[in-house]
Amino acid sequence: MTDLAELYRDLHRHPELAFAETRTAAVAARELRAAGFAVAENVGGTGVVGALRSGDGPTVLLRADMDALPMAERTGLPYASAVDGVMHACGHDMHVTCLIGAAARLAERRDWSGTVLAVFQPAEEVGGGAHAMIDDGLFDRFGTPDVVLGQHVAPIPAGVVGLRAGPSFAAADTLKITLHGRGGHGSRPEVAVDPVVLAAATVMRLQTIVSRETAGGDTAVVTVGAIRAGTVANIIPDTAELHVSVRTYEARVRERVLSAIERVVRAEAQASGADRDPEIVLETSFPTVVNDADAVERTRPAFDGVAAVVDPGPVTGSEDVGVFATAAGAPLVYWLLGGADPAAFAGAGTFDELREVVMTLPANHSPLFAPVIDPTIDLGVSCLTNTARAWLRQD
Amino acid sequence: MTDLAELYRDLHRHPELAFAETRTAAVAARELRAAGFAVAENVGGTGVVGALRSGDGPTVLLRADMDALPMAERTGLPYASAVDGVMHACGHDMHVTCLIGAAARLAERRDWSGTVLAVFQPAEEVGGGAHAMIDDGLFDRFGTPDVVLGQHVAPIPAGVVGLRAGPSFAAADTLKITLHGRGGHGSRPEVAVDPVVLAAATVMRLQTIVSRETAGGDTAVVTVGAIRAGTVANIIPDTAELHVSVRTYEARVRERVLSAIERVVRAEAQASGADRDPEIVLETSFPTVVNDADAVERTRPAFDGVAAVVDPGPVTGSEDVGVFATAAGAPLVYWLLGGADPAAFAGAGTFDELREVVMTLPANHSPLFAPVIDPTIDLGVSCLTNTARAWLRQD
Amino acid sequence: MTDLAELYRDLHRHPELAFAETRTAAVAARELRAAGFAVAENVGGTGVVGALRSGDGPTVLLRADMDALPMAERTGLPYASAVDGVMHACGHDMHVTCLIGAAARLAERRDWSGTVLAVFQPAEEVGGGAHAMIDDGLFDRFGTPDVVLGQHVAPIPAGVVGLRAGPSFAAADTLKITLHGRGGHGSRPEVAVDPVVLAAATVMRLQTIVSRETAGGDTAVVTVGAIRAGTVANIIPDTAELHVSVRTYEARVRERVLSAIERVVRAEAQASGADRDPEIVLETSFPTVVNDADAVERTRPAFDGVAAVVDPGPVTGSEDVGVFATAAGAPLVYWLLGGADPAAFAGAGTFDELREVVMTLPANHSPLFAPVIDPTIDLGVSCLTNTARAWLRQD
Amino acid sequence: MTDLAELYRDLHRHPELAFAETRTAAVAARELRAAGFAVAENVGGTGVVGALRSGDGPTVLLRADMDALPMAERTGLPYASAVDGVMHACGHDMHVTCLIGAAARLAERRDWSGTVLAVFQPAEEVGGGAHAMIDDGLFDRFGTPDVVLGQHVAPIPAGVVGLRAGPSFAAADTLKITLHGRGGHGSRPEVAVDPVVLAAATVMRLQTIVSRETAGGDTAVVTVGAIRAGTVANIIPDTAELHVSVRTYEARVRERVLSAIERVVRAEAQASGADRDPEIVLETSFPTVVNDADAVERTRPAFDGVAAVVDPGPVTGSEDVGVFATAAGAPLVYWLLGGADPAAFAGAGTFDELREVVMTLPANHSPLFAPVIDPTIDLGVSCLTNTARAWLRQD
Repeated sequence: MTDLAELYRDLHRHPELAFAETRTAAVAARELRAAGFAVAENVGGTGVVGALRSGDGPTVLLRADMDALPMAERTGLPYASAVDGVMHACGHDMHVTCLIGAAARLAERRDWSGTVLAVFQPAEEVGGGAHAMIDDGLFDRFGTPDVVLGQHVAPIPAGVVGLRAGPSFAAADTLKITLHGRGGHGSRPEVAVDPVVLAAATVMRLQTIVSRETAGGDTAVVTVGAIRAGTVANIIPDTAELHVSVRTYEARVRERVLSAIERVVRAEAQASGADRDPEIVLETSFPTVVNDADAVERTRPAFDGVAAVVDPGPVTGSEDVGVFATAAGAPLVYWLLGGADPAAFAGAGTFDELREVVMTLPANHSPLFAPVIDPTIDLGVSCLTNTARAWLRQD
Repeated sequence: MTDLAELYRDLHRHPELAFAETRTAAVAARELRAAGFAVAENVGGTGVVGALRSGDGPTVLLRADMDALPMAERTGLPYASAVDGVMHACGHDMHVTCLIGAAARLAERRDWSGTVLAVFQPAEEVGGGAHAMIDDGLFDRFGTPDVVLGQHVAPIPAGVVGLRAGPSFAAADTLKITLHGRGGHGSRPEVAVDPVVLAAATVMRLQTIVSRETAGGDTAVVTVGAIRAGTVANIIPDTAELHVSVRTYEARVRERVLSAIERVVRAEAQASGADRDPEIVLETSFPTVVNDADAVERTRPAFDGVAAVVDPGPVTGSEDVGVFATAAGAPLVYWLLGGADPAAFAGAGTFDELREVVMTLPANHSPLFAPVIDPTIDLGVSCLTNTARAWLRQD
Repeated sequence: MTDLAELYRDLHRHPELAFAETRTAAVAARELRAAGFAVAENVGGTGVVGALRSGDGPTVLLRADMDALPMAERTGLPYASAVDGVMHACGHDMHVTCLIGAAARLAERRDWSGTVLAVFQPAEEVGGGAHAMIDDGLFDRFGTPDVVLGQHVAPIPAGVVGLRAGPSFAAADTLKITLHGRGGHGSRPEVAVDPVVLAAATVMRLQTIVSRETAGGDTAVVTVGAIRAGTVANIIPDTAELHVSVRTYEARVRERVLSAIERVVRAEAQASGADRDPEIVLETSFPTVVNDADAVERTRPAFDGVAAVVDPGPVTGSEDVGVFATAAGAPLVYWLLGGADPAAFAGAGTFDELREVVMTLPANHSPLFAPVIDPTIDLGVSCLTNTARAWLRQD
Repeated sequence: MTDLAELYRDLHRHPELAFAETRTAAVAARELRAAGFAVAENVGGTGVVGALRSGDGPTVLLRADMDALPMAERTGLPYASAVDGVMHACGHDMHVTCLIGAAARLAERRDWSGTVLAVFQPAEEVGGGAHAMIDDGLFDRFGTPDVVLGQHVAPIPAGVVGLRAGPSFAAADTLKITLHGRGGHGSRPEVAVDPVVLAAATVMRLQTIVSRETAGGDTAVVTVGAIRAGTVANIIPDTAELHVSVRTYEARVRERVLSAIERVVRAEAQASGADRDPEIVLETSFPTVVNDADAVERTRPAFDGVAAVVDPGPVTGSEDVGVFATAAGAPLVYWLLGGADPAAFAGAGTFDELREVVMTLPANHSPLFAPVIDPTIDLGVSCLTNTARAWLRQD
């Protein structure tokens, strides 16, 4: 059987950006075939579907996302990214590895009836991957699942699973904002409209949407993840670009935040005396990930003996895994898979102490993010395998 | 004789960045040789020197700078830049063209004794070009000049020359500032230190150096020409980069501004709770351009019949032309050459009215900057030719 | 019997600031005596305690706070404040009125055994009132209560009560921050250190504590309620003063916010080049109000037939009512009393629709805040009377 | 004869605000009468005019302003202000003292023919005092002067006078800006519009008017001298107030700055989502003070033997003394009177060294401003006496 730790290191070393996960997809397809799955490639771009039918019974969709992030790795690991400026900083390589392992185990021991769909999705980070697979006929071609299961590795201790009923991951919206100034020589700002100052004032003002326009009891996160203007010191550029990420759980909060962003951006352009209105493009929208309460209860015992289950509260991260469930009309059960070295938590007894340790660890999207291979892979494989069995017909 | 308008359009179409002006240099060398000058190439990198000796007499250095800017042209001209993201937005193509024309004219009509040095300098925009030529033995190899002459095209009417004794162009310093935050997932700012917010707060605070720490009667310009952080909306990056340009006329003001920038940058990093101090690198320093008062008076009559001479006041733009004069121990006379269509100024009688029109025209470093070819080239050639003659021995 | 509506209007017309509630206290004492209570005045400054013992049984403390706010009323009501710059904008006049009414009703119908303590507390808004009464021997002199009950009028519909177990009102800290600049003539900022700009930069930076340093799932509110610097346009003042209010529910969040405020304030002073460190004084600290879960369950039926009970979630407002419970070692039950005209909510069926209406109404501390007299007083009296009976021995 | 040092200390101890200078005016009137002047009081409010005619000849207007500033003195001097929150921080007490002394000397030694008008003007700081006296018939009642002379004490060495032809003091405009938010409880910013944040963002943005919209060669100073909002930490107020002072020399710069202020203020209110537009009131406008070039040349020798005359460049401070000259159609000669202890300048030989020392001294409008009594009074009296004689007919 494939050495999953080696496979993981190989994937980590070769991260691929959204919709370009060709190497990763080939690995997944190869392993699925080796395990006896019927395999379809290029579903929704670079997506891969493996189907294993074993008699009549429910259809269980197990999902892993494959894409990496456009950032430079700084872990210094022997198996660190070999691709400049691209990194598996969100652990999708771990998701792929665990699903490959679970597919093999389920194929090996057929103490179940039904159909397992192993779905390797492209482009989760930029959104659109789940939609692309569905639009490409995922359910028409392979059947509509009765449940959607999946996991996300997180900097909580390996051996712990975070699971909750109801809203679990936030809605996420991504905006691209182009601010128009008027370029000129760096020494003559008085004949220009400086888009760098405009962008800075806008970023400062955007902070007030969370600090002043969101109630204490509501949740909103507004992050300007990227700001770009100009090339050299002595040219005032024409434009500045902001890339903004918004996280919310409730539609009413989301609407207020999005509308406040527009109000602030337009007004700041006016404050600068800009000749031209800013452009605000809603690039992606992830809905809230909502775990089905009944399905969570049904699934929960499957973690017994594998991991301790805690309620992490709603997480401000976002996911498009819910798109599969919504489109299928099936319940979703999606959990956080602990990937941090348990040794780091030595002496942390209470929940608050654990939390304090988590705060000190490199989080997802950090250039230092690095789950421990052992026992994370093994536990992740078990979580998928056991939860799938909980939904398949037991013979 | 070479069609200078055609030569100008060709240079404009093929802009080259600092220290990469090989094509431009080849054109200059070819034309100098055609005119009968002794030519040396690759002086201080891509610099070109043409020397024409005609009996005993003073040595006059005529200087043109050759490099273009890293910005996309938006003039829509038929001869607009054919190089993506590079543009002659500062008119150095005009400087090269006029000096080629003047060299030819001076060679043609030898009613003078002495030596003409036609110096085509690389890398004015990023600084370093004049120093590089001097360090490469410019004066040792070609003689030390008795005067340094040069011109810069500007959006004042063609037919007008701006000339003043004393400080004429500002000192310019360029700083690269790296602000260190701590990256993370865009949904979890609380475990990151957001360098985008840090950069924005810093830019806003830097404004106060001019507005609050510079006396009304002093001059300082602080421009953040470029700001860069992050790649996508949902990753908080590790760092942000600012490129800052500072213009001043007096050492005391310059020192206060540079020290205030450092104070603000360091304190804002502390306000963000950054773990690591910012890095502040002084990348280039241009000294103030000071025209010699006596030399200006001696040169002034040379413009009679060519252009009306006005005092434009000190200009906040910067130049390294003064480096030649300082190194040679020779006086400098450097003027603004009107390059704007006189038709644009119809009806503008007073100085203030002219000024109002100038404010509406695309300035140097604008993606729309475009001097009129006729009569600018002809006047620019005459200015160089006549002022050179004013310093050569008249036979 | 006293006309409670008239009494309320009289109190509203004569608001008194913290620890100066002498007229209000006299009204409370008069009415308590009329109802047959033993009355002590000047307990903890201007506090009033009425005790009514009726056989053996538990001691129930009913609490109302008396102080008004330093703000100008703008309701335009016929009974609006007659005191310039002072207003009952937080509804303490309603609390006093309802407790007077409940004391009378409990005295009138003695179907209970035990002791009722009617506590009229000074100085809730500025903190310190509850502590002052306890320090003045409240429990030693009048007995230690078995339960502490109280209510706060809020802009939810009259007929609705907001009640929850656990953390109900936030911890509140009040800071006074003095920023030191260096004064001077308004025309010469370069020889001054402008504290107005320093204060503005600080306020903008303080926003990032909530927007960037508080997790989406945690609650923190940081409000700069007052900013003061300077007297006239052309003098740069020496100092600026900020008054900051902080709301949190958890100690860990509170500590991070308070420490971030200090970090930001000190760093911004350095960014301004201030000669002297800012002063940060923690003026008041209210602890979180935590309702006892068992006591809430025991009390809940007492609202039947009076008001619909909803869970408002944790409220970011703060209260020192919990100080009585903590000092007594007794459970606390504290609820929101609906005071908004139910007509305003016509057509609002769902919780979200109700919430939308609430958002449009003048909230506590608004110069327009005005509970409806009828039926709020009657319901508030019933709530206090019935909940008290639920804890007294029923005969 | 009156002891002028004692008189100065007395005036300094009893500062009076604009249009309330009744005690100061009484002192001036008393001393003028004692010197033999015909005196009129209450001219333009609290203004005082003394006229001394001595045969035919020119009329010379000598002007002193009388009002103090609303700020607390911190000099610690034995004769420091005895009035809380009011201080002679601009030296008008010195102006009054010197004019009293000069009037006495001119009366004493009548080696001249003509008329001396000693004008003690109210309300220079807030503007309006000069206009008020003219509107009250100053010239109709006392004659139109042939020249207007005056002086302002400054932190340059005693023994030095600053005098220049042309624009000498800046135009000054004072704006009162009211920003409308929507008040509420400090814990519920989401139902309020926070005017403190709005004010802070506005102050930060106003900095960019000087830093980005004013050319390096132009002069503008924009000072927010006062900011006021709110009373306590836990109430979000309804409004915030800014008091802004603007200094410029040229009409074109002034217009751009004033229009940019309006643009910024209105746009920032929109960025906050304010329901109501800000109010911007232009409270006072001082014109530029322009010394007549011919009159300066004629007056200059009068300083010989009294003080060294330097050109201080245009000063960003403002004055309404020019209103007298403009209204009279007479030339103005207005100078800076050195009032700093010469000992402080020991070792400072060059102009730049002197300047460095000046930068360290408390400037006008500082709570520490304190001219040295000796020799400032004596020199100030001589300056006024000698320059007056230079314009009177010499017998």
